[in-house]
Amino acid sequence: MNNNKVLIVGAGGVGSYFGGRLAQAGMEVSVVCRSNYEKVKKNGFEIKSVNGDFSFKPAGVYRSCSEYPETADYLIVTTKVLPEINVIEIIKPAVRPGTAIVLLQNGIEIEKNIAAAFPGNELISSIAYIGVFQNGNGRIEHLASGRLKMGVYPGGLSEKTKLLSAAFNQAGVECEAVDNIEFFRWVKLVWNTPYNPVSVLAGGVDTKVISTTKTLEDLCATLMKEVCAVAGSRGMELPENIIQSNLDYTRNFPPYKTSMLLDFENKRPLEVEAIVGNVLRIAQAAEIPVPYLETVYALLVSADIQNRS
Amino acid sequence: MNNNKVLIVGAGGVGSYFGGRLAQAGMEVSVVCRSNYEKVKKNGFEIKSVNGDFSFKPAGVYRSCSEYPETADYLIVTTKVLPEINVIEIIKPAVRPGTAIVLLQNGIEIEKNIAAAFPGNELISSIAYIGVFQNGNGRIEHLASGRLKMGVYPGGLSEKTKLLSAAFNQAGVECEAVDNIEFFRWVKLVWNTPYNPVSVLAGGVDTKVISTTKTLEDLCATLMKEVCAVAGSRGMELPENIIQSNLDYTRNFPPYKTSMLLDFENKRPLEVEAIVGNVLRIAQAAEIPVPYLETVYALLVSADIQNRS
Repeated sequence: MNNNKVLIVGAGGVGSYFGGRLAQAGMEVSVVCRSNYEKVKKNGFEIKSVNGDFSFKPAGVYRSCSEYPETADYLIVTTKVLPEINVIEIIKPAVRPGTAIVLLQNGIEIEKNIAAAFPGNELISSIAYIGVFQNGNGRIEHLASGRLKMGVYPGGLSEKTKLLSAAFNQAGVECEAVDNIEFFRWVKLVWNTPYNPVSVLAGGVDTKVISTTKTLEDLCATLMKEVCAVAGSRGMELPENIIQSNLDYTRNFPPYKTSMLLDFENKRPLEVEAIVGNVLRIAQAAEIPVPYLETVYALLVSADIQNRS
Repeated sequence: MNNNKVLIVGAGGVGSYFGGRLAQAGMEVSVVCRSNYEKVKKNGFEIKSVNGDFSFKPAGVYRSCSEYPETADYLIVTTKVLPEINVIEIIKPAVRPGTAIVLLQNGIEIEKNIAAAFPGNELISSIAYIGVFQNGNGRIEHLASGRLKMGVYPGGLSEKTKLLSAAFNQAGVECEAVDNIEFFRWVKLVWNTPYNPVSVLAGGVDTKVISTTKTLEDLCATLMKEVCAVAGSRGMELPENIIQSNLDYTRNFPPYKTSMLLDFENKRPLEVEAIVGNVLRIAQAAEIPVPYLETVYALLVSADIQNRS
């Protein structure tokens, strides 16, 4: 069952780690690389993992989707969600009848355009819980966690989702197939939307600094409350204790730099829209007041631009 | 009338510029310097001014107020307003009977402690509208404006205020003696409280970037609205068009870095409490919701700490 063909588009930390795991499960995994193409074509990926180091030699390494000669059963998108990355244009050449598109990305409202552009293809939305980054060309550092959740967008389960999920589990990746993936996107967002921007705007602070600075932690809690209200307008009833449990979790976790702070420090573009802007726009459309989010968004958009100019 | 004795405490840009003007008006102006003591003792100040360059050789240059041998008619405080600068302890040795204390500083609620510490001395509160900074030891750059307003704290006029104001006017400094100085502090704050922190938190942007970025300008307008509400709770009825006129003024002013941004870029401490924190605390005591101000304050306190560590 596992000789499915997989094409990973955006082979950074997340893409190469999970792609490597699917290869271990027997799938035929190819990758589309940009900056690291030469290195990966020659050597594949070396993955330093908390679960044991391993190598991943993709079945094929391509510069773009148009070079991919096969029909992928799964086309897994692991690019950052950025306005300058047009996922539809990038993946179009490799989306064939029968290809399931899997979005393994951060944020909210990231599926709608893709679903509209490829109405004949199954769209699987997936969330990664993992600390992993690319440390130079083709060298991957997997530091923490490594779970997945996935489900059909906008809701429901499917055979293809179950099969992919089973392959991950076979390779030792805890992956849960769920029929309400959007719910879990909101749950993750309740953490991401506050901690990511605050870590950047408060002068570049890790989670420990946030958790031990009352005004910053209070700000995160208030932002969480706003995100919960916005989720509520979408019919998502988040667990009552979600804010307190996020605060506790973060307090007890080892000091950790958010992915947005890492991007900021490396002068890379931030996922502002997927993680903050889209929540704000949903709030505005539903006329839910979110003053804290609004402030953070305005400052973050500008700080991101200044940081790269 | 103008042979009054003046002691300037905190001889940076503001102190030496206005001190130099009082000397031109015939007053006997001495200064207390710290970092620039040796240079100023030897050479005095060289002031490059948009109104014509001039030198200022103080009558006396001292390392601390305890060295000042005279009784000052005016002790003018021009230090930054920072928690680590204890103005009361600094000026105490030079405050004698008959010495009027003049606070020529930014912010709100900066007078109360001083008034309580020196109940027998007149306290004059003054606001400077000026673009001036110290460019190396004893070299001052006066770039723009240069007006003053002053009045007795908490309200009223006095002979000493009028005399000081007249001396400034005699030296070509437009100085208005007013009986409601706190009102003008709030008016100035309506600009300072938004633009200063936003210029820092938005990634280090000048007024032109703020004015041409809709989300940032909107944020400033919303912060102004909050400051006006807080001022209202103090009985200050600010002009109805103050927000629009601040927006227009800033749009039409040449691109300008706020004093807080200049401090931030030079890794100097920011006047967070005088300009933002005190407004927030007044709001909290009066139970006025100021979510935008609250967000900006939490982020700014942390960014300031990180910037200097």
